[in-house]
Amino acid sequence: MSSALAVHAPVNGSEANGGIPDPNFSFTISKVGGSLQPAATLFKIAEPALERWNFTWYEDLFAQDAHSPSVVRVTSKAYRRVALYEPGEYVATLNYYNGTKTVANWLVRPLQQQKKAKNVILFIGDGMTTDMITAARLIGHKSINGKYQSTMQMDKFPVLGHQMTHSLDSYITDSANSASALYSRHKSTVNAMGVYADSSADPFDDPKVETIVELLTRIWGSAIGVVSTAFIADATPIALTGHTRLRSRYGELIDQALRGVTNYTWTPYSGADVFFGAGAEQFIPGSGSFQGKDYYQEFANAGYTVSLNKTSLLKVSNTTKALGIFCTSNLPVWLDRNVYTGYLNTTKNDPSGNKKPALDLPGLKEMTLKAIDILHARGGDKGFFMMSEAASIDKQMHTLDYDRALGDLLELDDTVKATIEKLTAMGELNQTLIIVTADHGHGFDVFGSADTTYPSSKSDDREKRNAIGVYTNSGLSQYTVTNASISYNTGVNFPVNWDPRYTLAQGVGANPDHRENYRVHKSGPRLPATNITGFPIDDYFVNPTDNTDGFIVNGTLPTNEAQGVHSLTDVPVFAMGPCQELFGGVYGNIDIFFNMANCLGLARPNDATGTASSSNATTTTVPFTGAAPANRVQRGLWVGMLVFQMAIGWVVVNM
Amino acid sequence: MSSALAVHAPVNGSEANGGIPDPNFSFTISKVGGSLQPAATLFKIAEPALERWNFTWYEDLFAQDAHSPSVVRVTSKAYRRVALYEPGEYVATLNYYNGTKTVANWLVRPLQQQKKAKNVILFIGDGMTTDMITAARLIGHKSINGKYQSTMQMDKFPVLGHQMTHSLDSYITDSANSASALYSRHKSTVNAMGVYADSSADPFDDPKVETIVELLTRIWGSAIGVVSTAFIADATPIALTGHTRLRSRYGELIDQALRGVTNYTWTPYSGADVFFGAGAEQFIPGSGSFQGKDYYQEFANAGYTVSLNKTSLLKVSNTTKALGIFCTSNLPVWLDRNVYTGYLNTTKNDPSGNKKPALDLPGLKEMTLKAIDILHARGGDKGFFMMSEAASIDKQMHTLDYDRALGDLLELDDTVKATIEKLTAMGELNQTLIIVTADHGHGFDVFGSADTTYPSSKSDDREKRNAIGVYTNSGLSQYTVTNASISYNTGVNFPVNWDPRYTLAQGVGANPDHRENYRVHKSGPRLPATNITGFPIDDYFVNPTDNTDGFIVNGTLPTNEAQGVHSLTDVPVFAMGPCQELFGGVYGNIDIFFNMANCLGLARPNDATGTASSSNATTTTVPFTGAAPANRVQRGLWVGMLVFQMAIGWVVVNM
Repeated sequence: MSSALAVHAPVNGSEANGGIPDPNFSFTISKVGGSLQPAATLFKIAEPALERWNFTWYEDLFAQDAHSPSVVRVTSKAYRRVALYEPGEYVATLNYYNGTKTVANWLVRPLQQQKKAKNVILFIGDGMTTDMITAARLIGHKSINGKYQSTMQMDKFPVLGHQMTHSLDSYITDSANSASALYSRHKSTVNAMGVYADSSADPFDDPKVETIVELLTRIWGSAIGVVSTAFIADATPIALTGHTRLRSRYGELIDQALRGVTNYTWTPYSGADVFFGAGAEQFIPGSGSFQGKDYYQEFANAGYTVSLNKTSLLKVSNTTKALGIFCTSNLPVWLDRNVYTGYLNTTKNDPSGNKKPALDLPGLKEMTLKAIDILHARGGDKGFFMMSEAASIDKQMHTLDYDRALGDLLELDDTVKATIEKLTAMGELNQTLIIVTADHGHGFDVFGSADTTYPSSKSDDREKRNAIGVYTNSGLSQYTVTNASISYNTGVNFPVNWDPRYTLAQGVGANPDHRENYRVHKSGPRLPATNITGFPIDDYFVNPTDNTDGFIVNGTLPTNEAQGVHSLTDVPVFAMGPCQELFGGVYGNIDIFFNMANCLGLARPNDATGTASSSNATTTTVPFTGAAPANRVQRGLWVGMLVFQMAIGWVVVNM
Repeated sequence: MSSALAVHAPVNGSEANGGIPDPNFSFTISKVGGSLQPAATLFKIAEPALERWNFTWYEDLFAQDAHSPSVVRVTSKAYRRVALYEPGEYVATLNYYNGTKTVANWLVRPLQQQKKAKNVILFIGDGMTTDMITAARLIGHKSINGKYQSTMQMDKFPVLGHQMTHSLDSYITDSANSASALYSRHKSTVNAMGVYADSSADPFDDPKVETIVELLTRIWGSAIGVVSTAFIADATPIALTGHTRLRSRYGELIDQALRGVTNYTWTPYSGADVFFGAGAEQFIPGSGSFQGKDYYQEFANAGYTVSLNKTSLLKVSNTTKALGIFCTSNLPVWLDRNVYTGYLNTTKNDPSGNKKPALDLPGLKEMTLKAIDILHARGGDKGFFMMSEAASIDKQMHTLDYDRALGDLLELDDTVKATIEKLTAMGELNQTLIIVTADHGHGFDVFGSADTTYPSSKSDDREKRNAIGVYTNSGLSQYTVTNASISYNTGVNFPVNWDPRYTLAQGVGANPDHRENYRVHKSGPRLPATNITGFPIDDYFVNPTDNTDGFIVNGTLPTNEAQGVHSLTDVPVFAMGPCQELFGGVYGNIDIFFNMANCLGLARPNDATGTASSSNATTTTVPFTGAAPANRVQRGLWVGMLVFQMAIGWVVVNM
């Protein structure tokens, strides 16, 4: 819908080129086989005004240690609310410094206008990898003589694919970046969503791109649902409607979720039909909410029923828009809500902000099934789109709390199973495309079993490590062996014993200093590393109170990382329903968008201008204030990069 | 074709039950809906003789530390050369101790008799995972603005699946175990191949199961090829024809590869058409070869042309059987053969045993393409089956030599690409099922980039770790950035620079003590951990000479492990050609066999008895001598277990 274009001129550093960015750069576009035209002419808009700004970054670690940032001066133009409607290949050329050229090849993909799926449900297991699914299957499903007596619901999906998650300027993505690719078909940069990230200070002035939610709202008027076990302003849920360079601007993002982008006209959007999740901080009037307003009230004023606990959630009408915020921060994980529930009483996460524990909590399954009732009722013949996220697979892998991560993965699978059963009962299954995938991975792995009675019998760390059995000595899963004294009543698809003598020997390749004893954490989520020196504040060591009888594993990450980090790995995609055949094999994360868009028939008429639609756009204007981006070690990726980020309408840069 | 049946009675330990195994146990089988019959009656054989033996194992780590093994007495019967030909469900019951019952449910799968694929090529990337494929793509293929300009050949396969690799008595498999599942549709135990492993001392008396090679030889007489970069007696190549409880009996296994199982009549088999690989130790007359014989001569006597280097390999006739053994041990890896070739001169691996370096070496691609020429010529209308293994993906991951592992993964992909091109030129592509998969994984992961110039500038390990850049600071792959001063001439599908300033920050979750600096090892394969104390001999610490400017990562494995270990993870399966549709979704490793068998029409006539075929069996009798199995920590899996291992003809226990 718009684009960013910039010329960067570093003043110092190895890439210094005089520090004078060309103010007279020109930008031309030619369709392959067609004539070359100035961009503004092609787009039928006035030439955008020239913008100027500076930013700084560190060229490398030595520059960072020396506190000598590189200063970059920028000249820029933003082409907004423009599009290319004719499928084909285009060559975009930035001409600067009297003859220097930077060329980008664009592909405008032809899309279907026919709708093949009435509904689309996109399940995202945040951070979920094949290794984790294998481990979850092992602890959650009984195997006899090598044969599983039951398997994961995901295992039963007819089509499997792998998606590549690398981003535009780094091969390790964050969840904003990857969510944006899944929802808007444009790879972006870390911390950005729904924009062509530029280097200016204001995180809200970046040229924006329409997301699948905005397209679907504009083109079909389908019902939209957003469900997550994270705080709802977190990247994966909020990127469906969010447009910012800085994912941490939670308050503004909740306002965008309700009102759409409001700093200028945009796609008509008046809030999704369902928002279920956590993160009361952005709703309770105060420092966490946008302009200190009461966003429970703001949503109520916009016609939303608001529920703050499971009991009221299950009672809300299916015909009105619904907001459900069930606690502050993230939803407590499945293991704490179902097995080691004592932890809940220690929390102060009541969504009213009264600092009491939130105990009447739904899980992903309850939120998702209720959302389907509402979306089915409100979408009617227009169908619905829902994104349902198991957020704490990622969050608990970050803190090396493998049991909690796998518990939430099993909850996701159980939710997918219940969803299929519900859609079948509704007669909607055959009209619904169901996708289960992830936004990125973690380098999690199971490599054997651990005798949890052994480490405490040894004082030496090297001896403690002998608790681990590999190959033959990994034995069989003890999580599925019924123990008469233990009953969680959590169903057939979960472990019958979370605390067997022989547990999984598991871990990640990228971790902070920590200690391992491979025992489940019963008193609450794990904190593997802490700052024990006090200064600098971001200097992390083994948490002295974690796994005290275990052995120390010193970290493989910078010491300012308190947690594990994301992985490069391709992640699995499971698909069933209309268009399932599009999801086999290996492809990019943006192809998830294109496959959904094709299945939903989101192509616009070639003669559309975009003007008509934006005239209906909300005109409520709320000024967003900018903030300077933090300095980054960027490793020399800036000069001339942004031209490649330019992507317009259906165009995906080089995709 | 046969089965093992045993009653185990531990004399001591927590499972002690008097130590008297029932000599009067009985074994009955009933087809669901049919009548119950004694097994011998059903199989039309005389009741097998009762066998007795004892074995010992350690019940747990405490028993091992105390050197107090449990003694188990065994009574056993072996039902050999029997089969169930009627598809359906069967219930097998072991009755012992006057009324105790152990029941196994068997499924005899109906198989196709029609041949849908003329040829099958099974590529095995030993230890290969999705994480590794993602990393190999990142270093081997250039990406611009998030779009790969070229991709892996595997990425282009139309069908993707995941296979579960867990074994019968442990969830972490070894390569014998998993190869056996892939080739013989029976999950087994660690170190076993082509047998129903029993607990007796003799590693060659275990009841045997026919492999796909033996079935294909007997039923269609197709040509058979075995290609590997490992020593040819290694598990993955040799399990195609090997039948033993103990994979380390290399000499005998090479004799089996030439003559088939020779301690009693068996499927007619007189040696595969092609064996290309390494491992001269089992061919040079001496301690490494069976009975000290010259196996180059034994193969020559059986009509094989023998080539010991690339030059002669490329010249051998396509119409005669061919043995190619190109060095001792494993083949030097792609990185050493193509980039850092200095290492080759330091080797003493000439296949003649003259202790000189083998320098005239083929790679996986040369071996595979030549094998196709021979198999195509010899198979004729009967087609061929070839297994081609990239063995050092696994071997180099074991030693944490990520670059060498990824180099061999790229060589595998390049070989698959060349194979498709060759088959296309031959007009054979559409008649050939091509599968690319792995036998198990390693917990490898890439989590960022590493500035290789930084660690040596710091003395403190914690400071060195700051060399790692995550998320935004991972940046883009520098392995594909052309450096005028570097040219390997290794083709477009490999890195143009293996030694950039910013390398992959990578590792595994399960490792011995070691040091990381994330720099390629130019002088030869890496040795991450060594025994620096001298005693005990299997006590491993950081190798003082490895990555001396790096930081120490203390291990997460028992200190007697010098290397990384295998992973639980499901591994990818890429398929194209006839029957490709069978390989989508998630399934067990044995299903790879069933899918290949169905595609090759390997079902036997229902009235077959097996007798006719075995009458043609080779009768050369070579006595194999047994060896007592090493004591193992088995974690209480023995009693009554073996009945479940019983599997007959087309039966797969509980599969």
